[in-house]
Amino acid sequence: MKPLILITNDDGITSKGILTLINAVRDLGEIYVVAPDSPNSGMGHAITVDSTIHIKKSNISEGIESFECSGTPADCVKLAKHHFLKGRKIDLVLSGINHGHNASISVIYSGTMAAAREASVEGIPAIAFSLDDFHYDADFSHVSAWINRICKNALENGIPKHVALNVNFPRKQAEDIKGLKVVRQTDGVWKEDFDSRHDPYGRPYFWMGGEFINHEPQSEDTDIWCIENNYVAMVPCHFDMTDYKSMDQLKNWNL
Amino acid sequence: MKPLILITNDDGITSKGILTLINAVRDLGEIYVVAPDSPNSGMGHAITVDSTIHIKKSNISEGIESFECSGTPADCVKLAKHHFLKGRKIDLVLSGINHGHNASISVIYSGTMAAAREASVEGIPAIAFSLDDFHYDADFSHVSAWINRICKNALENGIPKHVALNVNFPRKQAEDIKGLKVVRQTDGVWKEDFDSRHDPYGRPYFWMGGEFINHEPQSEDTDIWCIENNYVAMVPCHFDMTDYKSMDQLKNWNL
Repeated sequence: MKPLILITNDDGITSKGILTLINAVRDLGEIYVVAPDSPNSGMGHAITVDSTIHIKKSNISEGIESFECSGTPADCVKLAKHHFLKGRKIDLVLSGINHGHNASISVIYSGTMAAAREASVEGIPAIAFSLDDFHYDADFSHVSAWINRICKNALENGIPKHVALNVNFPRKQAEDIKGLKVVRQTDGVWKEDFDSRHDPYGRPYFWMGGEFINHEPQSEDTDIWCIENNYVAMVPCHFDMTDYKSMDQLKNWNL
Repeated sequence: MKPLILITNDDGITSKGILTLINAVRDLGEIYVVAPDSPNSGMGHAITVDSTIHIKKSNISEGIESFECSGTPADCVKLAKHHFLKGRKIDLVLSGINHGHNASISVIYSGTMAAAREASVEGIPAIAFSLDDFHYDADFSHVSAWINRICKNALENGIPKHVALNVNFPRKQAEDIKGLKVVRQTDGVWKEDFDSRHDPYGRPYFWMGGEFINHEPQSEDTDIWCIENNYVAMVPCHFDMTDYKSMDQLKNWNL
C-alpha cells in the first residue's frame, strides 16, 4: 500500500510553496492536503479552542484530495488526524514550503513548524520545509529534488520518535546547493522596532517590524550559517521544553 | 530602585487571574501591565506580523500603569520591551494566573507560557503561573503567598539565563498545598474529538474538544503528577528545541 502523506502549510492553500511541495513528493505516496484558507504567518502553535473551524473542499491539484480550513496550521493537522483520516495510519506529515526561512528562534513563531511539531506530538514522522526567500513568487526550482530525497529517506529510515525535522533551504543562487548538514538551532533573536502611528480616528496603533540578530554568526553547526552558505539546514526538534540542566539550581530556592 | 515587573496573561486583562497576580506581587516592585484586550487561550507563540496592533490605556488597579492590547500575549511582551519600556531594564516578566493548567504538552499551546518564553528569549527572567481550574471565578486564594515567595526568590537568586519557569498550581483543596517540586514536562497528549455540525446555511463546521492522555501517570517527577497530588509544579523551560540526541542518527541518511 502506498504511504499516506498529509501536507499542510502556514502561507495558505493558494501559495506557490505548498503546490511545489505537493509536486515534489507526489510520486512517493497518497497525498492528502488540509491547509489554511488564508495566510497564517507568525501563528506559532496557536490552536482554535474558543470558536468554530470551517472547512471547504479544495482542488489544489488533479487527483489530490484537499481541503481548505479556517483554522491554524496546528488545527489542520489535528483535524486531519482526528477527523478526516481517523482510523488511518498517516506515514508522514509535511508542512511548507514556507516563503521565508524558519531558522533559529523563528522555530517558536512559525506556523509551518507548529504543524510538523503537532504531528510529532502524535508520534507521526514530520518535516517542515522553508525557503530563505519570502517573496510571493519565490524561486523554488532548486529544492524539489532535495525534498523528494529527504522524504524518501524519512519513509525508509524513519524519523526518531517525537522528533520533527526543521529543514531550511538557502535561496536560489547561481551555483548549486553545496549539501545538507544536520545542525542545531542558532542562538539569535528578533530585535523589534514598532512603527507607531495614529489611525484616521486619532487612535494609536503599531506595526511590528525588526531585524534578526545572530549571536553566533561564525558557528558552522547552526541553521542560519547553513542557509547563508548555500547548504540545506536540517534541525531535529523535540517538543519537550524542559531545561534539565537548570533543575538542580532551582531546587536550592528558599520556598 | 524598585525592581520593574511586567505583567501579562492570555485570558485577557479583565480576568480574575491577572488581578490576583498583580495583587500577589505589588509589594515587590513597580508593576507595569500590558495584557490582551480579549481572551487568547490556545494562542501559543503567535505574533502579529501581518496586521496592526491597537492599544488602549487601562485602569486595572489603583497606581498601576496598564494597557490593553489587541495583540497576542507574545506581542504584549514585545511591545512592552521595545516600545513602552524601551531603554529601561525589566527585572521580571510574569504571566497569568491562567485559568486552567498549562502542564505537560499544553506548554506548546499556551499563550501564558509564550509570554514568559518571549521574555526568556530577550534574556529577561520570566515566570508563567497557571491554576488547575479553568472556571471564570476560580478560587485563587491558596496561591498568592506562593507566588510572592517564588517571585521574591527569582528577584534575589535570579533565574538561569534564557529559562522561563512554568509554574502550575493545584486547584483549591480542603488541605493546604503540600509543597513545591522542580519537575519536568509530563509526556502526554491531547486526544481531540471534533464536534462536527452544520451552520444555518448548511456549511460544515467543527468545534475542537478532547481529553488529556497522560502517558506516565505514576511519574512523581512530572508536572501533572504534582498538581494531581496537591503540589506546586515548577518546570524550567528553554526555547532551544534542538533534539541533540537524534542528530547522529540523521547524519547517516543517504542524501
